[in-house]
Parts: sequence; structure tokens; C-alpha cells
Amino acid sequence: METLFDYLHLRRLGINTHQEPVVYMRQDCHVAMSEGFYAHSRVQISTASHQTIATLVLVCSDLLSHQEAGISEATWHLLGCPADGEQAWFRHARPVDSMSFVRGKIYGQRFTQEAASAIIADIKAGHYSDIQLSAFVTSCAGDRLNLDETIAITRAMVDSGQRFDWEQDKVLDKHCVGGLPGNRTTPVVVAIVAANDLLMPKTSSRAITSPAGTADTMEVMTPVTLDFARMQAVVEQQGACLAWGGSVSLSPTDDIVIRVERALDLDSEGQLVASVISKKVAAGSKQVLIDIPVGPTAKVRSQATAQTLKHLLEQTGAALGLDVRTVITDGSQPIGRGIGPALEARDVLQVLRNDGHAPQDLREKSLQLAGVLLEMGDKAAPGQGYALAQSTLLSGQAMARFEAICLAQGGFNEPQLADYSHVIRAERTGVVAYFNNRFLARLASLAGAPNARSAGMDLHVALGDQVQAGDPLFTLYAEAPGELAYALDFLNGHTDVIRIEDDMV
Amino acid sequence: METLFDYLHLRRLGINTHQEPVVYMRQDCHVAMSEGFYAHSRVQISTASHQTIATLVLVCSDLLSHQEAGISEATWHLLGCPADGEQAWFRHARPVDSMSFVRGKIYGQRFTQEAASAIIADIKAGHYSDIQLSAFVTSCAGDRLNLDETIAITRAMVDSGQRFDWEQDKVLDKHCVGGLPGNRTTPVVVAIVAANDLLMPKTSSRAITSPAGTADTMEVMTPVTLDFARMQAVVEQQGACLAWGGSVSLSPTDDIVIRVERALDLDSEGQLVASVISKKVAAGSKQVLIDIPVGPTAKVRSQATAQTLKHLLEQTGAALGLDVRTVITDGSQPIGRGIGPALEARDVLQVLRNDGHAPQDLREKSLQLAGVLLEMGDKAAPGQGYALAQSTLLSGQAMARFEAICLAQGGFNEPQLADYSHVIRAERTGVVAYFNNRFLARLASLAGAPNARSAGMDLHVALGDQVQAGDPLFTLYAEAPGELAYALDFLNGHTDVIRIEDDMV
Repeated sequence: METLFDYLHLRRLGINTHQEPVVYMRQDCHVAMSEGFYAHSRVQISTASHQTIATLVLVCSDLLSHQEAGISEATWHLLGCPADGEQAWFRHARPVDSMSFVRGKIYGQRFTQEAASAIIADIKAGHYSDIQLSAFVTSCAGDRLNLDETIAITRAMVDSGQRFDWEQDKVLDKHCVGGLPGNRTTPVVVAIVAANDLLMPKTSSRAITSPAGTADTMEVMTPVTLDFARMQAVVEQQGACLAWGGSVSLSPTDDIVIRVERALDLDSEGQLVASVISKKVAAGSKQVLIDIPVGPTAKVRSQATAQTLKHLLEQTGAALGLDVRTVITDGSQPIGRGIGPALEARDVLQVLRNDGHAPQDLREKSLQLAGVLLEMGDKAAPGQGYALAQSTLLSGQAMARFEAICLAQGGFNEPQLADYSHVIRAERTGVVAYFNNRFLARLASLAGAPNARSAGMDLHVALGDQVQAGDPLFTLYAEAPGELAYALDFLNGHTDVIRIEDDMV
Repeated sequence: METLFDYLHLRRLGINTHQEPVVYMRQDCHVAMSEGFYAHSRVQISTASHQTIATLVLVCSDLLSHQEAGISEATWHLLGCPADGEQAWFRHARPVDSMSFVRGKIYGQRFTQEAASAIIADIKAGHYSDIQLSAFVTSCAGDRLNLDETIAITRAMVDSGQRFDWEQDKVLDKHCVGGLPGNRTTPVVVAIVAANDLLMPKTSSRAITSPAGTADTMEVMTPVTLDFARMQAVVEQQGACLAWGGSVSLSPTDDIVIRVERALDLDSEGQLVASVISKKVAAGSKQVLIDIPVGPTAKVRSQATAQTLKHLLEQTGAALGLDVRTVITDGSQPIGRGIGPALEARDVLQVLRNDGHAPQDLREKSLQLAGVLLEMGDKAAPGQGYALAQSTLLSGQAMARFEAICLAQGGFNEPQLADYSHVIRAERTGVVAYFNNRFLARLASLAGAPNARSAGMDLHVALGDQVQAGDPLFTLYAEAPGELAYALDFLNGHTDVIRIEDDMV
């Protein structure tokens, strides 16, 4: 076929289009003209060794010669990092067949296992454009996935990635569905559980719409981008790890979906369950404790929603062979003082070090969760887990194990505070009556978290505290003045971040 | 504020990102670093005279210097076509507030007028990224817009663009909801109606997911990109025009929404009604006839759906002051022989020229539609419209007026056939029993239509025709061999495009 002889020379342009593969081509080059490409065509690129699909961006200037095809970083990786000048052939990509399942879903049909597997496989292969990913994410949001669909997507996600097998009956794990700023219990819980000789190979995600995920916070203190073999080695040595899930390809499509959810500021209940359970199964976990904080401005706002989610998590877990237990906790205010990776890391270390200044709410919640896990792992009799967790923390064993895990992962760093800060003070005297968790999270994000590791905020008050006008409520931290200004700008338009009311007593 | 002094020099890169505004910046330039930008940040760009929002793409190579910001064609236009080197300032764009309405919709809330207006205004201003546009389109698809929401979006779309006022009571218009290949009645209808001295300022859209829209077909014969003043002049002179709606900004957000619908191969019923009615209102139309073809593989597949659509169109029209009449027609097979811009243009001209080879189904349907419009315009008594339409066509007045309209729009060209063609023959003897309109449309699209103007297909048979094995069924046309090969490739996997069955008689 004539088109087989139409090639262009690849050129890595050093353009970071995030995860969407893009190819750049002159609109008047022979390939674009003979193939009938137009802007945003989905194009199949073949080299001698690799093949992928990319979105075409046409160039009408001398940025490229007529013999060149520019490739973005994502395309360059998918093509196996070709050298500049390597030949590549181009043709229209076949329409992505699995998009018909997404269209069916939009029109009210249910995902079958076949549909879910086809969609997840195409997403993993990079066959979905950002526009198509957004349609998939939107079609699942708003509680439109039922239990069977959630199980189907979960199974498809597990099948799409690597999977650990620890060859043990007790492999513990925990997860928080999120929505509550701070609340960084995981590093403390893992340290306590591992110090009791239970296996806890913890993988965490990065922030979706929040100012920090556990992986972001841990990265302040230690490398979290561990490959499969490295993670295995850390767990064999220390009984636990605190790694970024994305780096070990446990559920490779999850980060792609999460990127789009983040751009839309949208979480889907079914996607959330599929994301959580698939990673737990892939991580080889057997007993999983899930924290569901409930509060008026948390991600889960009512006991009814919490019960639905509890059911969906436990049932999906059971379908995939997991023992899932859920605890519904108080989500009316942040847990801990810091919000943002470095500030939360500091809180975690204060708790682990039995520091007198450690935030007691974070300490208390971590002990309770660790206690349940110690019971699930048969290290403590029912009702005795908390006491064991407490003694493990007080004895310094938890901190010792935490440091050992960090060292095994590649080193330990003390968190640093950001250079720019600004104290926000109470405008009136009264009692702290309400925290808007969403606004607090937004503020910390605007200040730069989680990309700016030391950005975020420190809370100086809690619900029920008596404050005088002029007392500090919280301190904003930023690494750049622009970000600090942007957060303060938001604060001007949103006064109800922390509400102070008259003391009714 | 310090950031006010952080600027970069703009450089037009000649990159056509379609309608999504993009800005390129080195990830290690002072602006990206001090503002805390990351990949896919939404960035506000300000020059001395203009301001817009663009999606940030980070560059990690020498494509740009540290003092430069590259801009895509869309961004360059939104910034008023700045000269290279012009200074620009950058900051984080505020989150797009109207996305909260889209999120609400995904969670089952209804669009109010306020929500619809805010969303449409933000889309018009270019504030939605492709990912956000896709979420909006998806949230509306699958019949999720009720009548009130459809009216709200229609009103918002009308308010967002220019609006014609013809200062007359009778301003006729027609529209087909689509889904049927060929079916290019509009040019014939407009010619007949205008030849009877009725006003018919017709604006049409380009193809969404089909191989040709009326604007695509007309563009083969005459310029259709008329500005507001030019369109007005054509209509004042000839009583009618056949222009592309997008070029006169009648409903500027519609093309943006359509681009995303096309990428998703998705039509939303409510968006369809809003799109149709808003353009009719903006065009200053008063009496509108809408053709709803129904068939097993047409866009509308059941009488029930057709009735829903009829109701939605008539009620939305009435809410915006239009007299909307609908006709439900046979959509079981294409109308006319050609599918694709030039091939359809040839059919249209054969009908207008009373050519003995003219496709009779296209002629008949055009006369019926024109007849109804002549009655709506009070040029014929009820029941007499068809006869008047027929005599207008036979007398040559319709063709004369068609040519006059084309000349007023800038000239008339005869359609040309494509260089590459391939005849598809019947594999068996029997009766033509079934056309798959969607596969036919897909075939014509794969062959290059509508971007390749002369690409598409010619049908040689109709339902009920007796054929012998080896008889030609249709001819594929393409402008490039790659496209022809691609269409033939599709045909290998999809044999049920035209089905031949045993003759049961």
C-alpha cells in the first residue's frame, strides 16, 4: 500500500502535555495531506519497534520541517524513547471501539465486565484522548455506577496492572476516602502495625483535589517512587513500606483517571471504590480498614452516604477476596494542625516522637485505627488493639520502625517550612463553631500544595475553642509570593472559612 | 505586587490546537517558577490591551527561551493578534465558577437560567478547557436536559451571539435533525421559497458526526463564510442566503460544543434542540419547519423518540417566540445518491436543473418541504403548497434564484468528483432489504468527508431493488489513497452495510 512508504522523522520537542500523547506535524507536509489528517485527528504512529496512538496538533509555521513529526514527552515514552531522526509511519487511528460502551453508559446502559475491561485496557494503552477520558469520568460520576459495574471496573483495573503476592494470610492495609484536610494517620498507623511484626505494604496515591495525598506527604521525608522490585525489597526488610502506588503500576489507569477528575474537581463514588479496592487487591492486601470521615463539608456529608459507601466498599472488596472493615469517623474539622505535605509530615513526626506539642486528635485517631488493624491481624484480642498500639508508640518502637522504613526506601529528610507566610486572625471574639473543610483545602491548594511541598496552612484553633478578636486562627505558607497572594485573594471573597459565633453558655 | 513585574515576551508558534487556547512556557522560566505553575494549569494571560485564559503546556527543551511564552493560534486570536515580542503577564486563572453548575448537574441537579447563562458565557469567553467542555456535554447527553433546562440553555445561547432582525412577520427557515446520509433538501427548498418572494435567510452548520452538513455541501459551490454585513446584503438582494451559521456568530458557543460532541461521537437531545432553536431565533426566523427522519439506523430510531423531540422543539421554539412545525419522515435509507459534500452538491444541482438523472427521492422530499413552507408563508392555501413548489422548480425559477444567491455570496462553482474511487458490488442475487445509515456515514467519513470535499460515496440501489450478484451497490470516492484504503478496511470488518435478502415474492 502506497502509504507504507510515507514516513516522517521523529523529533522530541520536549513538550510536556501531561499524560495525553500528542504528535505535531506541518499541515502542509506530505503525510498530513496524503492521509487527510486534520486538527485533533487521532493518529496511529508506528516505528520499527513500537506503535501508539496520539492526538494530532497541526503546525502552520517553521517550527517543524516538512520531513519532521514532533512528539510530546508522553508520545516519546510510549514509542520507547526513540532517537531524534528515527522514521515513523502514520495513519488514521481506528475509532476507539470501547467508546461505544461509554456512549451506552451515557444513555443509561450498564457496564458489563466486557465493557469495563475494554475501556480500562484502552485507557491503559493511551487510546483515550482527554476529551474521551472526561466523558468516561463524567458518565460514572453522580452515583451512576451500581455494585456490579463497580466490581467490573475494579476487576478490570486489577487485571490491567502488576499484582503483588506476599504469600501470607495476614497482609494489612488501610485507606481513608478523603475529603478531610490533614488527617495524615497512615504513616503513624503503618509504623505501629509494622513494629508489631505484621505485614503492611502500603501504597498511597497523590492528591486528587486535596492539598496533599499520603504519597505527597511521605515524599517530603523519603523517596516514594519505588519500582516493583525495590518495594518488594523494602517490605521484605521492614515488613512495610510507604510508597506511591502509581510508581509500581499497581493500577496504571488510576492516575490517568485521577488527573481528569482533578481537572474537573469531581470525585465519582464508583470510581473511588474501584480505585481503592483495585489498588488493595493489586498490592496483595488481605485485611483492609477504611476510614470514612463524615461532616457537613467533608467529602462524605451524611451518614446515609457513608452507609452506601461502606456497603459498596465492603461488597466490592468481598467480590475480589478482601476482608474490608470500615470505620465512620468525625469529619467536621481537619485532623492535625498542618495542611499540605511538609506541614502534615511535621505533625506525623511529632506524634511518632511522642512530642509534647504533637496534635492530640491526630495521635488519638491513629491509635484507634492501628488498634483495629492489630486486632484484624490477630496481634491483639478484640478490644485490646488500642492499648497495644499505644504502648508501641510510647515505647519509641513505632518511630524506630518508621525511620527504618524511610531509610530502606532511600533516606530520611526532616520537613522544612516555606519561606512565605501570613497569619490570619479572628475578626471577633467568640467560640469556633464551624470549619469549611473545602475552603481550607482550596486555600492550601491555592497557596501551592501539593506541588509546592512546604506550602499549605497551620491551624491554631479547633471546634469549641474560645477566641478573642485578634487571636491567630491559622497561618498560610507558600513557596512563592504569587501563590500566597492568590490564596489571600480567595480569602477576601470567602469569609466563612472558619466561623466564630457567640458563646451560648 | 511583585508578580506584576514578571512578564514574558509572546511568540506565536503557529500551532493549531483547534479552539482550545494553549500557552507554552519553559518549566524553569522565572514566571512558571514564581507563580507555581504546573502542567495543565489554567493561566490568565494579560497584555496591555487584552486578557484571556489558556491551558499551560510546559516545555523542557530549548524550543523556547526563558524570556518567551509561546502561544497557539487560538490564544493569539483571543489576545487580539499580538506582534511577536509583545509583553504579557501571567497568573493562575481563577477556577471557572460556572463549573460548579456542571458538577451539580452531574449529581442530578437541574440547570437554572442563571446556571445556563453562566456556563454559556464562560464557554464563549474560552474559559472552559477541553476536559471541562467534555464534562458539560456529557452531563447533558442521554436525555438529561428537561424542557425548562433546554429553554434556559437556548436563551443563553441566543444571548451570547449576534441576532438578526428582518423587520418582517414572515421569515422562513427549515432544519433537519440529521442522522440520514445525503438528504440535502435545504438548497432546493431555499431556492423554491426564495423564488416565491419569501424571506429565507438560511444559516446551516457543518457536519457534527456526519459526512457533510449543509454548510459543507454549499461550500463546494459557493463561499459560505459570510460576515454579518455580507449575509445581510445577500438576503436583502436575493431574499435568501445559504451561509455557514458559525461565521456570523449567531450562536458562537455552538461550534465549540459541536467540536467536542464530534470528538465523542455523541449527540445530546437537549443540546440538539438548543442548538437548532437558538440559531433560528438568532437568525431572526419566525416560521420554522423541522424534518425529523425516523428509521432503525437514523439518528431518531423510534416514533416515540420522534414525538419527544417534536414536543421539545415546538415547546422550546414557542418559549422563544417561534412558530415551529415538524414533519416526521422516512429515515430507513439515504435520500439522494451522493453522500459527501461534492456528491450531494451534484444531486442538488440535478434536481434544480430538472435533470432527467436527478434523484427522484430528493426531488420529491424537497418539493414536499418547500410546499409546507410556502403554506406557512401564506404564499399558498393549505394543501396547495406542493403544486406551487413543483411549478417553481419546473419553470427554472428555482435554479435561477439558486445561482443568483451563489453569485451574491461570492461566485458559483461546479462540484468536482474525487480522483480515487472504488466500486462495491453485490455478493449475491436478491432484493435490497436494509441500509445501515450509520455505517454508510462512517464509510463516507473514513473516505475523507467532509474535510475532503469530493470524498464520500454514490449509492446505486434503493430499498426493494432487485440486484444480481456482481451488480454495483455503491462507489466510494476519496481524495487520497490512504483514505480510500481506510474506508475499504472498515468495509472488510462490516459486511452489513447494505443487506440483500431473498426475494420473498
